[in-house]
Amino acid sequence: MGVLGASGYAGRELSALILRHPMLSLAFAAANEQRGTTARIAGRDVPFIAADDVSLSQAELVFSALPHGASKEWVGRIREAGVRAIDLSADLRPGNGCEGIAYGLTELNRESVRGASLVANPGCYPTSILVALAPLFERGLVADGATIIANSASGVSGAGNSPKRELLFGEIAENYRAYGVGNTHRHLNEMSATLQSWGANADLVFTPHLLPVARGILSTITVPLSRPIDDVLAPWREAYANEPFIEVSDEQPTLRDVVYRNVVRIGATAIAATRTPMLLVTSAIDNLLKGAAGQAVQNANLMLGLDETAGLPA
Amino acid sequence: MGVLGASGYAGRELSALILRHPMLSLAFAAANEQRGTTARIAGRDVPFIAADDVSLSQAELVFSALPHGASKEWVGRIREAGVRAIDLSADLRPGNGCEGIAYGLTELNRESVRGASLVANPGCYPTSILVALAPLFERGLVADGATIIANSASGVSGAGNSPKRELLFGEIAENYRAYGVGNTHRHLNEMSATLQSWGANADLVFTPHLLPVARGILSTITVPLSRPIDDVLAPWREAYANEPFIEVSDEQPTLRDVVYRNVVRIGATAIAATRTPMLLVTSAIDNLLKGAAGQAVQNANLMLGLDETAGLPA
Amino acid sequence: MGVLGASGYAGRELSALILRHPMLSLAFAAANEQRGTTARIAGRDVPFIAADDVSLSQAELVFSALPHGASKEWVGRIREAGVRAIDLSADLRPGNGCEGIAYGLTELNRESVRGASLVANPGCYPTSILVALAPLFERGLVADGATIIANSASGVSGAGNSPKRELLFGEIAENYRAYGVGNTHRHLNEMSATLQSWGANADLVFTPHLLPVARGILSTITVPLSRPIDDVLAPWREAYANEPFIEVSDEQPTLRDVVYRNVVRIGATAIAATRTPMLLVTSAIDNLLKGAAGQAVQNANLMLGLDETAGLPA
Amino acid sequence: MGVLGASGYAGRELSALILRHPMLSLAFAAANEQRGTTARIAGRDVPFIAADDVSLSQAELVFSALPHGASKEWVGRIREAGVRAIDLSADLRPGNGCEGIAYGLTELNRESVRGASLVANPGCYPTSILVALAPLFERGLVADGATIIANSASGVSGAGNSPKRELLFGEIAENYRAYGVGNTHRHLNEMSATLQSWGANADLVFTPHLLPVARGILSTITVPLSRPIDDVLAPWREAYANEPFIEVSDEQPTLRDVVYRNVVRIGATAIAATRTPMLLVTSAIDNLLKGAAGQAVQNANLMLGLDETAGLPA
Repeated sequence: MGVLGASGYAGRELSALILRHPMLSLAFAAANEQRGTTARIAGRDVPFIAADDVSLSQAELVFSALPHGASKEWVGRIREAGVRAIDLSADLRPGNGCEGIAYGLTELNRESVRGASLVANPGCYPTSILVALAPLFERGLVADGATIIANSASGVSGAGNSPKRELLFGEIAENYRAYGVGNTHRHLNEMSATLQSWGANADLVFTPHLLPVARGILSTITVPLSRPIDDVLAPWREAYANEPFIEVSDEQPTLRDVVYRNVVRIGATAIAATRTPMLLVTSAIDNLLKGAAGQAVQNANLMLGLDETAGLPA
Repeated sequence: MGVLGASGYAGRELSALILRHPMLSLAFAAANEQRGTTARIAGRDVPFIAADDVSLSQAELVFSALPHGASKEWVGRIREAGVRAIDLSADLRPGNGCEGIAYGLTELNRESVRGASLVANPGCYPTSILVALAPLFERGLVADGATIIANSASGVSGAGNSPKRELLFGEIAENYRAYGVGNTHRHLNEMSATLQSWGANADLVFTPHLLPVARGILSTITVPLSRPIDDVLAPWREAYANEPFIEVSDEQPTLRDVVYRNVVRIGATAIAATRTPMLLVTSAIDNLLKGAAGQAVQNANLMLGLDETAGLPA
Repeated sequence: MGVLGASGYAGRELSALILRHPMLSLAFAAANEQRGTTARIAGRDVPFIAADDVSLSQAELVFSALPHGASKEWVGRIREAGVRAIDLSADLRPGNGCEGIAYGLTELNRESVRGASLVANPGCYPTSILVALAPLFERGLVADGATIIANSASGVSGAGNSPKRELLFGEIAENYRAYGVGNTHRHLNEMSATLQSWGANADLVFTPHLLPVARGILSTITVPLSRPIDDVLAPWREAYANEPFIEVSDEQPTLRDVVYRNVVRIGATAIAATRTPMLLVTSAIDNLLKGAAGQAVQNANLMLGLDETAGLPA
Repeated sequence: MGVLGASGYAGRELSALILRHPMLSLAFAAANEQRGTTARIAGRDVPFIAADDVSLSQAELVFSALPHGASKEWVGRIREAGVRAIDLSADLRPGNGCEGIAYGLTELNRESVRGASLVANPGCYPTSILVALAPLFERGLVADGATIIANSASGVSGAGNSPKRELLFGEIAENYRAYGVGNTHRHLNEMSATLQSWGANADLVFTPHLLPVARGILSTITVPLSRPIDDVLAPWREAYANEPFIEVSDEQPTLRDVVYRNVVRIGATAIAATRTPMLLVTSAIDNLLKGAAGQAVQNANLMLGLDETAGLPA
C-alpha cells in the first residue's frame, strides 16, 4: 500500500493501520512538507519521502490523504499508473461535480466498492449522519418534505495538524463554538447529493461545532417521521443486523464509546410533546477511524478481496 | 443578603457576587452538608451555617440555591418571615404548577421583577434559548406552527458539585454526550410554558449535551421563519439596543466570549438550501452567571431599587 | 483468571487485558459494590458478582485489585484455596511489613516472579522511578550519600473511580497541584525499601502531583552522580537492551508516547552548571498498564510459563 | 501608556489591565503582524497599529512585550524618546549581559523600581521560584553549597500564541512533558545571577514542564536547610507580612487558587526521612499576571507614584 499525505492526522492513522494490518504492507509514505524526516508510527520508524519521488506503480493500491483540491490530480496520476486508489479528500465525493465514482460509505455501497478500482472515501460528518439516516429512508419513515436538523460536534483532529492560531490549545481548551453555519460547510453537498440519490424528499440543515477533545464526532439529528414508530431502534437493528462495524445502543452513544474504534454507534429516542411524530437520532464515530482512515482500510479490504474486518479495531 | 445552599457552584458564585457587590452585604451563607466549615470565597473566609440555625429575617432578601424540590418549602419560610426571595431552583418557574410568580428573565420581564417580592430565577438553558427567541416572536418572524430545534451544550458546573461517578474528570474529559433526550429535560416545561405565554404557536425540541469544559452554555437553534429576513441580526439589535447584558455579534459566539461575564451573546445566520426560509441562531452564556447567580443578582438589584448593573461583570 | 475489585479503573483494565489475551480467559470478575450489574469491557458484557459468591478455586490465578487494607485478607483466602495470586494493592509490597514476597517489578525481579505463587505488583510511581534508577545503581553511578529528588505527575485515573468531590471534572480541569508532600505518600516506603535492598546509600525525596489528564505518569528525577557520564543513555541501553517493554529515548518522553502501552520510556540528560555532576532522568508510563494491570499480566505470563509479552500492547 | 507587541498573550493581558486601570489609559497598542486589525480587549475595540507608526513620546510609559531579541532595540528607542520603559522580554534581565538595570521582582526590589525609568520585568518561572526562595536565603536557612531542585509546570499560554504544531490542542491535551532539560532554559541565567546577587552559595537545577492547561505555573522546590525549622511557614509569613500580592498557605497551593490574580501563593512542608533537613516549597502564580503583565503594571504603578495595587486583581 502507498500513502500520499502521510504526515497529517488521517495519513498517520492510515499508515498505522496498514503497518498493523495482518495482510497489508506499507510500500511508501509520502509527505512533501516533512520529506526526509522519519516519523514513529505504530512502533516503527517510517521515512517520509516527497510525493514526486514515489514510484506509484510499486503499490497495489494508493490512498490519497492529500488536502482537498490537491488530491484530485494525484488520484489521476495513480490511476494512470494502473494502480487502484482511495481518495480521502472531498474532491471526488458526491455533490462535488464528479459523479459516477464509487462512494465508499461501506455499509451502504458495499457492492459498488467491491468492484471499484477508485473509491471516494466519505467525509467524517457525512459518515456519522448518513449511516444514521439511511434505515429511516429505506423504510419510508421520514415525513415527506421533512426538514432534518443535524447538529454535529467534532474533536479538533478533524481540522488537521497544520499550525493555525485558532487550533492552539489556548484557543480550544474550555471553549466551544459553531462554524460553517447556515449550510455552508463543504460536507453539505456530499450529504445532499447522497440524500437525492436515495430519492429522498427532504431538506437538511447541518451545523458543525468544534469540541475541546482530540477525536470523535457526535451527531444529534432530529427527524420528522411519516408515522410514529413503536420500537424506535428497530430500523437500525434490522438494517445493520450483520454489520460488524455498526452498533445500536439503548443508551446514548458517547465519544468515549467509539474513539480508537472503526464503528458507528447509534441511539434513537421518540421526541415527546410535538404535534407530529419526531425522532431524535444520535450517532458517534471516531473521526479519524470510521470517519477517515478506518473506513478507507475497510474499503481497501473489499477492493482487494480480503476479509472486510481485517486490521480494523472494532 | 442571605444565601441558602451556598456550597454548590451557583451558591458560591452568588456569595462571591454579593461579597464583591458595592451595595450589598452577605448576612449569612447556609449550607447544611458543610455546616461548621469555612470556605474561601472572593478573598474572604465565609462560614457555612446550617439553614435551620439561620435567622431569615436578618436579611433584606434571601436567595435560595437549594436543590429542586427542597427549595419550595424554604422559599415559603422566607416569605413567611416577611423577607423578599429569589428562588434559583426550578420549583417556582413557569410550567411547574406555580403560575403567577414573577419569572426573572430580566430583559423580558423587567417590570414584573421590579415590583416583585418573590422571583423565580430562570434555568440556564431557558435563559440562553428564550432570550434568543423572544425578538423573533415579538416581530412575528417565526413561521406559524413551526418546530424549533434547540441543541444546547453545557459545561459540567451546570450539573453541580455533588460527587457522582459520571462527573469525575476521568469520565468527562475527552468525552461528549447528549442527555435528557426526547424532550425529557426539566427545562422543557419552563420553555414551553413561556412560549405559550407569548402566544407562540410553535413546538420546541430541546436536546442538552454535556461538554468537557467547566462553565458556559452554547445553544444552537434552528427556526423556521414566516418570511425571509434581509438583515438577520436586526431583530436582536432592535430589541436589545439598550440592554447592558445582551450582545449581538457578527461572528459566531463562543464560550470564551462569555465565561465570567453576566451576558447573553447572540449570533444569527440565514440557512441556505432549504425550501422555506430558516434561521440559525446561536446563543452563549456563562451558566453560573447569566444562567444562574448573575441573573439572580440582576433581579435583586431591580427588586431593591438599585442600579441593575451594580456588582455584575459585563 | 479471576479478578477481585473488577469495577475500579485498574480492575477494568485488567479484565480487558485478560479478555483480549490469546491464552487466558476470565473465570470471574468480582465487584461488591456493583454486583449484579453488567459492564461492557473489551467488547463483551461482563457480569460483576460479589466476591463472597466467587469460587476462588475455579481460577488458575486470581488478581486482587481490591483497595489497600482490604486486599491482604483476600490474598490469604486465594492462597488457602491453593490458587496463585497477584496483589495489585500496596499491602504486600516491600516496606509494608510483609517482606519475603516476590516483588513484581518484572524487569528487575524476573526470576523470582517466574517461580512465585504470590506476587506483590508494584505501585505506579515506584514502577516509573525504580526502573529508571536501577541501571545507575547497578553501575555504581550514583554518588554515595546522594539525595535523589523524584517529582512525579499523574493522571487522575491513578486516584480511582470512586466519586469524590476533589476528583470532579470541575475541580481537576485547568488545575494542577502537589499532594502527599514531604515524603508522606504511601509509595515512599515501597521505594525506600527497594533502594535499601539494592544496598543503596541514598535518600529519596518523592513528590507526586495531580495532572488534568486521564492517564499517564511522568517522573522527573535528579540524580547526583559519582562521576560524569559521557554517553548519558548508555546505562539504560545496556541494562535494558533486550527488554521488550522498556524504551530508551533521545527525546524527552511524553505521556502521549506511552499511554495505552505496557512500557516504561526513559530519557536522560546531563545537567549543566552544577558543581558536582548530576543527571536529569525522565520516565513515562501508563499508570493503568505498566503501572498496574499491564505489569500484573506481564507477571502472570511469567508465573504461568507463557510468553512474557502475550496479550500486552507494546 | 503604550504597548509594543500587544497581540501576544502577555500583550493582550497588559492592554486589558491598562484599559481597566482606574488611573491609566492606553495611548497605543502596536502589533506588527496584526496591524490594521482590531481586537476586542476588556470590552473595547482596540486597533493594532504598526510599531513604526507609533509616536513613542505620546505615552508616559511604554511596555515592550516584544519577542526576546527584538525587544532590546525598541527599548533603546523608547528611552531615546525620553519615555519610561518596562521590558517584558528576557533581553535586559540579570544574567543576560545587561547588568545595572532595575529588575522588577517588585516585592524584592521595590525601592530600585520606584526610582527607575527603565525596568526589566522578570520571567514567569523566576517570579515563582525567586519570590519563594528569598526569605530562606535572607534568614540563612539554606545549607551552604546546597543544590536546590526546582521543577516547574506551566500552562501553554507561557509559550505564546504563534501558530506552532507542538502547541496545537491535539498535541497538548492529555499530554505532559519536560523541556529545556539539563539547565538549558533561558530563565536559568536570570535566576542564577539573582541568587549570586544575594550572595547565595547554592546550585540551582531547573526543569520546566508543559501542562495541558491554559494558564498558571506551579513550582515545586526542594531546599536543603542549614538547620531544621520548627514553624515551616514562618519565613514567608514574616518576610511578606505586609505584601498585598503574596499569600502564604497552610494547604498546597493550586493553579485554581491563583489564575486571573496577580499573586504568588506559597506553601512549605518539612521533608521526612532524609539525613539532613530539607524543605519542600511550592509556589503558584498566574504566568500572564504576576508572571508577566500583572507584575509589569505593579512596577508601572510604583514608577508613576501610584498606589502599587491600583488596577490589579488580588
